[in-house]
Amino acid sequence: MNSPVSPRRRSRRNTAAQDTSPSLPQLPYQQVRSSFAPVAPLSEDQLQAIHRQSLKIIAELGVKVLCPDLRRALKAKGCTIRDEIVCMDPGFVEDMVAKAPSSFTLTPRYPDHAIAVGGNVMNFGLVSGPPSVHDTINGRRSGNFADFKNLIRLGQSLNCIHFMGNQACATNDLAVNTRHLDSLLATLTLSDKITSTMSIGAGRVRDAAQMLAIARGLTLDELKSSPTAMTNINVNSPRVLDKEMSSAALELASLGQAVIITPFTLMGAMTPVTFAAALSQQNAEALFTIAVVQSMHPGAPVVYGGFTSNVDMKSGAPAFGTPENSRANMAGGQLARHYGVPYRTSACNASNCVDGQAAYETQMALWGAVMGQGNMIYHGAGWLEGGLVASFEKVIMDAEMLQMMISLTSAQNFDDGDFGFEAMDEVGTGGHFFGCDHTMSRYKSAFYAPILSDWSNNESWLEQGGKTATERAAVIWQEMLRTYREPALDPAIAEQLNAFVIRRKLELGANEP
Amino acid sequence: MNSPVSPRRRSRRNTAAQDTSPSLPQLPYQQVRSSFAPVAPLSEDQLQAIHRQSLKIIAELGVKVLCPDLRRALKAKGCTIRDEIVCMDPGFVEDMVAKAPSSFTLTPRYPDHAIAVGGNVMNFGLVSGPPSVHDTINGRRSGNFADFKNLIRLGQSLNCIHFMGNQACATNDLAVNTRHLDSLLATLTLSDKITSTMSIGAGRVRDAAQMLAIARGLTLDELKSSPTAMTNINVNSPRVLDKEMSSAALELASLGQAVIITPFTLMGAMTPVTFAAALSQQNAEALFTIAVVQSMHPGAPVVYGGFTSNVDMKSGAPAFGTPENSRANMAGGQLARHYGVPYRTSACNASNCVDGQAAYETQMALWGAVMGQGNMIYHGAGWLEGGLVASFEKVIMDAEMLQMMISLTSAQNFDDGDFGFEAMDEVGTGGHFFGCDHTMSRYKSAFYAPILSDWSNNESWLEQGGKTATERAAVIWQEMLRTYREPALDPAIAEQLNAFVIRRKLELGANEP
Repeated sequence: MNSPVSPRRRSRRNTAAQDTSPSLPQLPYQQVRSSFAPVAPLSEDQLQAIHRQSLKIIAELGVKVLCPDLRRALKAKGCTIRDEIVCMDPGFVEDMVAKAPSSFTLTPRYPDHAIAVGGNVMNFGLVSGPPSVHDTINGRRSGNFADFKNLIRLGQSLNCIHFMGNQACATNDLAVNTRHLDSLLATLTLSDKITSTMSIGAGRVRDAAQMLAIARGLTLDELKSSPTAMTNINVNSPRVLDKEMSSAALELASLGQAVIITPFTLMGAMTPVTFAAALSQQNAEALFTIAVVQSMHPGAPVVYGGFTSNVDMKSGAPAFGTPENSRANMAGGQLARHYGVPYRTSACNASNCVDGQAAYETQMALWGAVMGQGNMIYHGAGWLEGGLVASFEKVIMDAEMLQMMISLTSAQNFDDGDFGFEAMDEVGTGGHFFGCDHTMSRYKSAFYAPILSDWSNNESWLEQGGKTATERAAVIWQEMLRTYREPALDPAIAEQLNAFVIRRKLELGANEP
Repeated sequence: MNSPVSPRRRSRRNTAAQDTSPSLPQLPYQQVRSSFAPVAPLSEDQLQAIHRQSLKIIAELGVKVLCPDLRRALKAKGCTIRDEIVCMDPGFVEDMVAKAPSSFTLTPRYPDHAIAVGGNVMNFGLVSGPPSVHDTINGRRSGNFADFKNLIRLGQSLNCIHFMGNQACATNDLAVNTRHLDSLLATLTLSDKITSTMSIGAGRVRDAAQMLAIARGLTLDELKSSPTAMTNINVNSPRVLDKEMSSAALELASLGQAVIITPFTLMGAMTPVTFAAALSQQNAEALFTIAVVQSMHPGAPVVYGGFTSNVDMKSGAPAFGTPENSRANMAGGQLARHYGVPYRTSACNASNCVDGQAAYETQMALWGAVMGQGNMIYHGAGWLEGGLVASFEKVIMDAEMLQMMISLTSAQNFDDGDFGFEAMDEVGTGGHFFGCDHTMSRYKSAFYAPILSDWSNNESWLEQGGKTATERAAVIWQEMLRTYREPALDPAIAEQLNAFVIRRKLELGANEP
């Protein structure tokens, strides 16, 4: 099942004007393929034990499915129902999971920003979900539409970002029942990359799919054969699939769009404290929900999501970027590959400010995600405070880390000239290579060029103000917003999108309780 | 050649009173074995190509050997000499390298702090070499004996530190010709862990070996069969082996003690800008020098060192924790394992302060070192400003990162109880696991407990002063010094060490030019 993804991008180096923020020299937009074999923290025996335990959980303990219609439909497929609990036979789970494709492509309104999902392709997402926002100029505040738009502008400007998550931050200043329309319209205007849609009920995702179809000049039926939309649903661990989530997932699957299924499994709180139990529960919840989707819409694109970290057992507070979280990010990849489905993971941290802790915890999680070969790496830029805050400085610091990962994991091919034997002979012993021809013809692109790191000596650094990385990041995101350029959008399509939103607002406004 | 290391440590959990700083709950002192397979950035073809290119460099370009006696000795072994350049045939290099042991054990005066060097054992070292020192209380200053001693106290107190490097910081306030005596006496008094010795000439390493023998109550002859001493020598890249370094290495090898051989290969400055060239040159310089040592002292313990990073091509400044540095740390491990010798690497950064950059660059280098399965990981705690500064806050931040690596890479065994099936059944759907028996009996040791990371919510964090990780680290190192306890030392041995230093100072003072 785990077939390689066929490359859809025309070339690694994309120089389209839309790709680059002119203020910041950065890596070109590219499809990122890891040249490293994934790291496997689980032995084959452990993997099999977790697999068996997961099937036992699904068969004997089951998952509470809150939607009565879905329970009835699953009963008709042969599942066992006890009150609201649905149990599935191991064979049924395996048969259903086998129907999921091992890879697929999501195409946004700018086709060069299409992303392959599967194989060794790694896509990095902007932070999504935080109720609050922070930057060092304006402080901490409730999530709002203006900040949402600025975060999307940064995500569009940064070439290392491949997709926007469900929502870059909450838009608490917009009406609850129509904010999905406003925020998607803004995203489709400010960005031409893949964006996730909110997963609250069938209506919202259907609205989203329609807007995404309009943006591409396609019908919903045409969108089926070239998916654009995706959403992430969380299983409410332990073992509850709520109606808003399942109906969003099934609606999107019915339209042939992608569903990412992510159990929210913090060890010690939503799962037992042990790694074996947490992984088994994550796996049970993910497989169960994949089976639900595949039983209703065989072959629909789905992604196996892992979000296993631990809590602080003294306070119950969630922790991220811990050794447990990093290991779970790798192990989740092993499990997803075992089932032949693409893998979603994350790069989170629990720091209260953009400091060393924010950086080292993010690196722990990110290395786990990359070495676990995550195909969709959520919260790649901007996550802070365990997800309570979207941080503007953190977006920049994380972009540096993502770019370094892209550079690190890219394939390195040597040719004879790369061995530089003549240069070594020319320079001799005890000399230096700064001025030789071999260097001069290669030095401009020889090494990764940072966007944030400062390698000045101490004297120069002090002369320039002795700024920390966080202080420098504040300069960069402001400059990036100042020089942001909106991607081209056909005025006729813009008009149709606006008209759709106006019409739906009227309909929803009339229906608002 | 790459045989497993036999475990010398009695148990993973060592509860000796000497191990723990009472002020800080930390992981127990332990021999760290990585349960992960190493990451291999080089294909087998690339590895072979680098191997062949290295032998060509040694055979055709050679290495400048500044010591006339050594040149004569190498000529007698069949090497070709042109002026000061020594060339070796590929067969000679391979034969000599094959004489090096694949693993060995270093035993300090406290035998429970012995370290195995080889296989999958990872030993972390305190920062070594910086000319200056920094902490946020007292600022930046020239390296001095008082700070040197405090850094050793921290290295002794931190259970994640296995060895002290050549010198934790410079001791610029001590007389040049005798500071090796003062600093080693201080290290042997303040610490009972493995310590490296300065590699400047045969005399200093012989003094060091004698003091280390005294500290263990052994003769130099007895020390041969149970080595304690080690030193790191740098090849002065490109391709110069100076007399101070070679004579230190050969003196120590003649005493059966360990020599770590580390070419200092910053790409773009000391090597061509290309990765293939830099690795080939690193490999040539390391193999050449290992061959030198083995040809004179067959079977002497040696370690293959890698220190390949890049410079900023705009300024020439060294950069660390770059993608190139991280990849080189992994590739160096592949090469060392190919030759069946233990591997030394590093965890460096180039930041000017203990900020996010310091943390993410260190993580990049550290992950490379750990995934490359470094047996001796130098500069594991305290390195800042590209090695110009030993930072007290960075010691603490790095200790957190090292502990997380120890926790991450330790083997995870599952038993039936770990799957927590009964707890899942008991808690049911939608509940939480905080109070159940399965949690209560395991929660105290379930997760890694940080020494620096703060997982408070924003309100609590602000109430506690809203301190960054660096500000919290400043509190921790001061508390650690306040509660530091000197390890026990037999007064008779202390007396002998003092007498040795007094005698040697008199001798050296008389000989001082």
